[in-house]
Amino acid sequence: VVGLSDVRAARVRLAGLVPASPCISWHLPVNGGPELPAVHLKCENLMPTGSFKVRGATNAVALLAQSGGASGVVTASSGNHGQAVAFAARRVGISATVVVPEDAAAPKVEGARALGAEVVTAGLTSGARIDRAQALARERGMPYISSFDHEAVIAGQGTIGLELLAQVSGLRRVLVPIGGGGLIGGISLALKEIGSGVRVIGVEPEGSACALAARRAGGPVSLEAPRTIADGLRTTRVGELTWPLIERYVDDIVTVPEDAIRRATAALARFAHLVAEPSGAVTTAALLCGAVAVEPGTACVVSGGNIDPALLAELLAAA
Amino acid sequence: VVGLSDVRAARVRLAGLVPASPCISWHLPVNGGPELPAVHLKCENLMPTGSFKVRGATNAVALLAQSGGASGVVTASSGNHGQAVAFAARRVGISATVVVPEDAAAPKVEGARALGAEVVTAGLTSGARIDRAQALARERGMPYISSFDHEAVIAGQGTIGLELLAQVSGLRRVLVPIGGGGLIGGISLALKEIGSGVRVIGVEPEGSACALAARRAGGPVSLEAPRTIADGLRTTRVGELTWPLIERYVDDIVTVPEDAIRRATAALARFAHLVAEPSGAVTTAALLCGAVAVEPGTACVVSGGNIDPALLAELLAAA
Repeated sequence: VVGLSDVRAARVRLAGLVPASPCISWHLPVNGGPELPAVHLKCENLMPTGSFKVRGATNAVALLAQSGGASGVVTASSGNHGQAVAFAARRVGISATVVVPEDAAAPKVEGARALGAEVVTAGLTSGARIDRAQALARERGMPYISSFDHEAVIAGQGTIGLELLAQVSGLRRVLVPIGGGGLIGGISLALKEIGSGVRVIGVEPEGSACALAARRAGGPVSLEAPRTIADGLRTTRVGELTWPLIERYVDDIVTVPEDAIRRATAALARFAHLVAEPSGAVTTAALLCGAVAVEPGTACVVSGGNIDPALLAELLAAA
Repeated sequence: VVGLSDVRAARVRLAGLVPASPCISWHLPVNGGPELPAVHLKCENLMPTGSFKVRGATNAVALLAQSGGASGVVTASSGNHGQAVAFAARRVGISATVVVPEDAAAPKVEGARALGAEVVTAGLTSGARIDRAQALARERGMPYISSFDHEAVIAGQGTIGLELLAQVSGLRRVLVPIGGGGLIGGISLALKEIGSGVRVIGVEPEGSACALAARRAGGPVSLEAPRTIADGLRTTRVGELTWPLIERYVDDIVTVPEDAIRRATAALARFAHLVAEPSGAVTTAALLCGAVAVEPGTACVVSGGNIDPALLAELLAAA
């Protein structure tokens, strides 16, 4: 079981390998009406490889390298986690193999390759690539690193919670995107176990709300076909390790419609001057569409920035 | 004459009114070839009002408020300085009047108005709006705040130099855009007078290089018609106060072509996940086009992010 001491150890382990991300203060645009309280944006899109995934991947890989043994790691990913594992492996000097779907986006595949990873393609589903990655890991005698259901990965993502407490005085609420639950699991664990009293609110796209479904059903359930522009949150099922953390530590889960995600992505670029991917914009979308009220001491985790430039151009033109 | 003590006093004065800007580490994209040393991006585009101008304006306005007297201030601006003065006046509780050209961009005018400023239009040239603003200031008995040729403004911009020294260990070179020279004047003064030995390199668009022209002529000269996409750097002449600072403290001045500015603006959005306006992208443009070599310990000031969304969409689509 992951605990606060694991998150604290991750923070020490990441020092020198991965920087802290900036947290900036931002006023949501309002048309007329009184000025709203400033919101704190935790800019994971400005991290190396462009997402929070670099924290968990680096923690997991550094822990393996520390304990000797591993000459390389294997993972399955259609996106940010693969690049993060490639980055982490290069930093600690071991090899990385990333299994991607046959229809993986070229920039993300190139990103992992540019960081020195071996890229293997397998099938079209997450099941197919995970099976292939786990088989490769067995063949090569290398550890397999899940993108969210992995203790060291969850502990690494939790370092965001510790940074937020240091960066935001008067922090009262944190909004966090939920995909498989590694990000919110780590952050909520850290904020609650440290006794901060900070509320943690999970945000999911309406069309891909597996954590809300799990909360309603009293346990993980599988979604049929998640549909959302937020490609990092198209998860069919919360993790076995992350679900108990969500159940215990997350105060509330809200959903946001697709048009709010699109508008938030454009608003972050236009007014906050941050390029966020749609998955990273769901938290500000929750404020912009009114799913969560804007109150003092509110932070939004902007989880990543790896958006297709053509999509960003389209969203800017529509705004 | 502005000195290091003024910059240090500005830093104290800005505390609580304006945050420090983040400085992130970024690897320039390379196609094949070895990885380049990381570059440090000083993100003034993430400051309130979206540019470094908020520093100088807040320092000038707070200094006036501190010494009692002023119930309001007047300025002339086609862009970022006007919004910055409006922001600063609101923060310290006095009025702001901003004189803009008749063809001012609507978003920038709306920005100043949304921050509570009175907006007055006058003519099409900088001369026309400065004359009108100075006349208004005399009529109303209020101080006029120049956008760059003002000691407190220069001292405020210089706080970037002090922050860089605290944020970047091993800092050796800083690239700074030059418009009227307030930004580079303040930064170079701070870095040199503190005895850091950091090299300061000014960057101008090829089509609007009034500082380089001044250096060659041995004093300020007026350009005929500056032409560049970098609207914040379309200055016809360096300032009377800023020129001696540039002459004394700036090690080198380089120019960048328009296509490099366009590509750098797109690259910052795609790969660094930062929205920069073209004026803010000239420093990374200098590295991307080879005008300045990428060496360890190099920082680029990304001076602002207020770009027309339609232009950003166009640059992304072309990249």
